[in-house]
Amino acid sequence: MNFKVLKTDTNSSARTGILKIDHGEIKTPIFMPIGTHGAVKTVTPSELKTVKSQIILGNTYHLYLRPGTELINQAGGLHKFMNWDLPILTDSGGFQVFSLARLNKINDEGVKFQSHLDGSSHFLTPEKSMEIQRKLGSDIIMAFDECPPSDADEITIKKAVNRTKIWIERCKQYLNDNPPVYDWEQTMFPIVQGGVYSELRKQSAEDMIPYAQCGIAIGGLAVGEEKSAMFGMIEILDELLPKDQPRYLMGVGTPTDLIQAVQRGVDMFDCVIPTRNARNGQLFTSFGKVNIRNEKYKYDFNPIDENCECETCKNFTRSYIRHLFNIKEVLGLRLATIHNLHYYLNLMELMREYIQLGDFSKWSENYLNNYEKE
Amino acid sequence: MNFKVLKTDTNSSARTGILKIDHGEIKTPIFMPIGTHGAVKTVTPSELKTVKSQIILGNTYHLYLRPGTELINQAGGLHKFMNWDLPILTDSGGFQVFSLARLNKINDEGVKFQSHLDGSSHFLTPEKSMEIQRKLGSDIIMAFDECPPSDADEITIKKAVNRTKIWIERCKQYLNDNPPVYDWEQTMFPIVQGGVYSELRKQSAEDMIPYAQCGIAIGGLAVGEEKSAMFGMIEILDELLPKDQPRYLMGVGTPTDLIQAVQRGVDMFDCVIPTRNARNGQLFTSFGKVNIRNEKYKYDFNPIDENCECETCKNFTRSYIRHLFNIKEVLGLRLATIHNLHYYLNLMELMREYIQLGDFSKWSENYLNNYEKE
Repeated sequence: MNFKVLKTDTNSSARTGILKIDHGEIKTPIFMPIGTHGAVKTVTPSELKTVKSQIILGNTYHLYLRPGTELINQAGGLHKFMNWDLPILTDSGGFQVFSLARLNKINDEGVKFQSHLDGSSHFLTPEKSMEIQRKLGSDIIMAFDECPPSDADEITIKKAVNRTKIWIERCKQYLNDNPPVYDWEQTMFPIVQGGVYSELRKQSAEDMIPYAQCGIAIGGLAVGEEKSAMFGMIEILDELLPKDQPRYLMGVGTPTDLIQAVQRGVDMFDCVIPTRNARNGQLFTSFGKVNIRNEKYKYDFNPIDENCECETCKNFTRSYIRHLFNIKEVLGLRLATIHNLHYYLNLMELMREYIQLGDFSKWSENYLNNYEKE
Repeated sequence: MNFKVLKTDTNSSARTGILKIDHGEIKTPIFMPIGTHGAVKTVTPSELKTVKSQIILGNTYHLYLRPGTELINQAGGLHKFMNWDLPILTDSGGFQVFSLARLNKINDEGVKFQSHLDGSSHFLTPEKSMEIQRKLGSDIIMAFDECPPSDADEITIKKAVNRTKIWIERCKQYLNDNPPVYDWEQTMFPIVQGGVYSELRKQSAEDMIPYAQCGIAIGGLAVGEEKSAMFGMIEILDELLPKDQPRYLMGVGTPTDLIQAVQRGVDMFDCVIPTRNARNGQLFTSFGKVNIRNEKYKYDFNPIDENCECETCKNFTRSYIRHLFNIKEVLGLRLATIHNLHYYLNLMELMREYIQLGDFSKWSENYLNNYEKE
């Protein structure tokens, strides 16, 4: 696995590059659709390719509970299980354990929790998370980190930074002792924590950089803090993180977030927004958001976005999609998901093109000025 | 619109033919997937074509209530509204009014009912049903008939037969006075009623035949009667109905029903079974039914049916589809729907081929003997 920066913008830290992975090359900056349970909700792998997805994300916590690591291992790994032959990144399970499950105990050893599904008890450790991700066979493994709640104070965040440092060494040790179970390379991205505290971010970056082989992640942002605080942290990290590795900003964000993060040197993103909002009827367009359930689209026989070339816009009208939402027909969820994913992935492609052309600053300024304020 | 029988089986009444319609040619015998509200649940028009759907059915009652006839009219008709450019048949709305809505009053004039959605009052008459179907723009319009409940006695059925006769004349009159609103031809299929009473069936056939221009339907079967009674009625009608027009058996059925009805001279079918059962996890295969939720498929990495060439079987395993049902992921409903529709439409294609080859009797006997008893 290797990463090569092809071009860096002269007026910002934005850059475009290629991340070479055994399952395919990823052109950055890139957005990763979320396939929580081994499926990006409502759509097929073939549709994901049509909207130009290059890599998707799987959730270790969810897959560990259902269908279970052993089943996916027997299937030949997550790629084969879900019939997706391009790269996959899996998270460590930590975020869901801290946010979804009922926590019983956290200590330096690991996290004891109860499943949100049936209350069954589980113990997740750095080693266990690595073991699961080895068996899932993801191309990019995420380190097991402590994710403090969004309202945590500085002392709590500091403890999490310190624990994350202890855990990354154990993750590395496990991976060194236990090679991949399939015949493709896996790399681990360490995760920089530190909340919105500059010194803790710097400390965590220093802790994590030695473990980054071909990529590093920024965690613990977009969890409720001010946008300015988020971008401030990214700016600090932009200075500190190695330029020759991709930076992955976890859980971000809106279209304007993506552009502003790319300006600050971020290369990879994942977020539920395009898919979840699609299922709620909120669609992204070149002129802002469209709530397709709105009465005003009842007799509107135009596509969602006349400038859009997705399969939904090529074939169906606002009136029809509104009708599908109205009758709770799942085809509507599909058509909306396809449109929003296309919007996001097309936005990333535009960024890559404008960075390559040297026009990124002008383009992004224009986009940010014209896109409705969120 | 015209129908041509290409070949009739020497040992049965099975025949294969072509029904020419402005929106395309239909090879018979054919099965019509049901697109209740202007969408075959979970799938796109393009997927319907991939599984070889030649014609689909729309429900007048549902479309009249949501999104409403005027909206579809403004969209340019149902084909354009839902982006389906092949033939469409619409039912008259009668069956749903009699089975779904709260009936207030039935008399010779029409049926007063309350919407099952919001309790609003509506009055459906032969003229109103024709007006709606003109505006929907279906290629095949179904006559407005009285559908007695499945447990109705002979006197009630006789009354329905008589009222259906009165109503067919009014349907015809309306259509004569009101030409199509779009630039394609529409034909009306009259519907033979009469329950399981031979004399009433004969009477109703006699009543309806004069109104059949290019097709006639058999209604009021598959509503709870014994299979033998159903096939008995079809045999009687096979003798009486014109050979040079397609016969449409409404609401039928299972794979073995379809074969046995084709043996008795039926050309067209519609039924919720393939799509509804798919959404419940029941899948049709060359060796019988598969309930994909079953625990025994948990580690089964084979396709649903190894002999099947549908997109689902080409790309996904039983284990994966079971998992999707387990997590209530709508992609599972899609994959199951595609498989079942492919199974049904492939079955119809096999029948056409074997009739053409002169091997239908042998093939159908073999199929009926080997398919699990339903």
